[in-house]
Amino acid sequence: MQWYFVAALLTLLTSSQGILTTLSQSNGKYKYDYATVPFLAEIFKLLVSGFLLWKEGRTSPPRMTTEWKSVLLFPIPSIIYLVHNNVQFATLTFVDPSTYQIMGNLKIVTTGILFRLFLRRKLSNLQWMAIILLALGTTTSQVKGCGESSCDSLFSAPIEGYMLGLLSACLSALAGVYTEYLMKKNNDSLYWQNVQLYTFGAIFNMAWLFWEDFRVGFEKGLLWQRLFNGYTIMTWLVVLNLGSSGLLVSWLMKYADNIVKVYSTSMAMLLTMVLSIYLFNVKPTVQLFLGIVICIMSIHMYFAPANMLVDLPTTSKAAGLGQPE
Amino acid sequence: MQWYFVAALLTLLTSSQGILTTLSQSNGKYKYDYATVPFLAEIFKLLVSGFLLWKEGRTSPPRMTTEWKSVLLFPIPSIIYLVHNNVQFATLTFVDPSTYQIMGNLKIVTTGILFRLFLRRKLSNLQWMAIILLALGTTTSQVKGCGESSCDSLFSAPIEGYMLGLLSACLSALAGVYTEYLMKKNNDSLYWQNVQLYTFGAIFNMAWLFWEDFRVGFEKGLLWQRLFNGYTIMTWLVVLNLGSSGLLVSWLMKYADNIVKVYSTSMAMLLTMVLSIYLFNVKPTVQLFLGIVICIMSIHMYFAPANMLVDLPTTSKAAGLGQPE
Repeated sequence: MQWYFVAALLTLLTSSQGILTTLSQSNGKYKYDYATVPFLAEIFKLLVSGFLLWKEGRTSPPRMTTEWKSVLLFPIPSIIYLVHNNVQFATLTFVDPSTYQIMGNLKIVTTGILFRLFLRRKLSNLQWMAIILLALGTTTSQVKGCGESSCDSLFSAPIEGYMLGLLSACLSALAGVYTEYLMKKNNDSLYWQNVQLYTFGAIFNMAWLFWEDFRVGFEKGLLWQRLFNGYTIMTWLVVLNLGSSGLLVSWLMKYADNIVKVYSTSMAMLLTMVLSIYLFNVKPTVQLFLGIVICIMSIHMYFAPANMLVDLPTTSKAAGLGQPE
Repeated sequence: MQWYFVAALLTLLTSSQGILTTLSQSNGKYKYDYATVPFLAEIFKLLVSGFLLWKEGRTSPPRMTTEWKSVLLFPIPSIIYLVHNNVQFATLTFVDPSTYQIMGNLKIVTTGILFRLFLRRKLSNLQWMAIILLALGTTTSQVKGCGESSCDSLFSAPIEGYMLGLLSACLSALAGVYTEYLMKKNNDSLYWQNVQLYTFGAIFNMAWLFWEDFRVGFEKGLLWQRLFNGYTIMTWLVVLNLGSSGLLVSWLMKYADNIVKVYSTSMAMLLTMVLSIYLFNVKPTVQLFLGIVICIMSIHMYFAPANMLVDLPTTSKAAGLGQPE
């Protein structure tokens, strides 16, 4: 399978995630406990990966490293995401949602930096520019237009808010880069790596749900009592969609890389905004149009072969300046 | 003299033009007739160029083509600008000033296209992207933020407005590209070319002023009766500044090119916006910051040597994808 096909599919699924989640609400409210969705998505991914591993094992024994030293590397992404979630909550106590959303684009740049530092991947000057441009493009698309409310507080939050936002961007990038390292560090079967990843993912998710229940004194009842409460067909689609996106991300981490994933999810964000215009009657803005064109140019800059970008039809570039013709 | 030094100077002068013009007003109004400023700037440029031509002639006779067939090519830029001015007025009867300002960025792209078509200059794929990016960056900086008024009419003007805006962008680019052709078509002294250009410029400007007087039935009196009316030292600075910028543009047309000029004036627009924050207490916006970073990246993409942009430190670019490490 080609990586760009998987990346395009991830864009479609990630983009529908926002749409499906909105459609799963009734009158703008969740009738079900949204916190149960990521947990069920982990279970779904675990079941699919387990099945595929079993199927793979029927023809030839899959490559599996089973020593504890290796297995114990797999809960680490879950732990990073757990810390990340808490940092996100803390950030939102300091900054308003607009600023929070704008700061979220920082993770594009931090992913590039950690990708370089930890995975030691070389990027050309142009590819660095493309990554920065992607962050600028997504940010541009999110600039609040005139007529929109709650904007005067932008960039007036206390310094703690920005530091936490930066920390959040670093943690998000770290989780991605670390997962890529895990998936690529040996030739183990992708499905076996997934099984380990999602087993710990499911455990940590469940622990988190229990902890939340404990904090509120079990007033919502126990986890299994409300797991499928208020679930509709649309809620199940949200779960399936989230799970499938997760599987695609794993595939990309092993056979492509974090930068491909970042492009994929950034384009998904823009696609969601475009679809919202048609589906939810959101007003189109100039900044959305600008952001989309900037991001498409960034993709071309990052992925196009270097000679296609810099070659001139016949004469040399230097002839363009300082010479009368 | 290096072209980038002249380009930077042009940026500073063009940027101060907006600031000086604002400062030359008293209580937000012109106490003098602003239409006289471009005319006097033409006279200033003509005097400076005439003096420099005379000085040049004292050491050795300057290269001058004086046959009428050649001289008669020099009123054409003035004629294009005259048509352009009228198209601008017509455009503004169809679209609001915000849309008009946004459409103005089209001339960056039309300049690139006419530069390619008429001057047959080759641009790399990356340089085309840089030009489009420059237009996107300047447009981004101009996106109306929340809280700003008069924005709901954006992109709701009649189709004639957009067609005229496009025509305006083409005429502006045509004037620039034609002037570059004039300046580079032979090795004539720059000063002699300037003298021809500004003689016709002054004549056309004066004719325009007379025509305006005639239209209103000479109610403001004759041109020379009001030429220096209400002029302050600041007004003279506006004239000097406009004239000097014009001389720099001529120099760039002969020794650099239209793209350099477009970069120079685009950066000037952004610089004016930044200076306005300090000088006129204009509120800084995220979109201005985004626009500036995008334009700086565009400059780097256009002017940096190709190998600096695409070379990887050691390994090849292709190794980055699809391979576990």
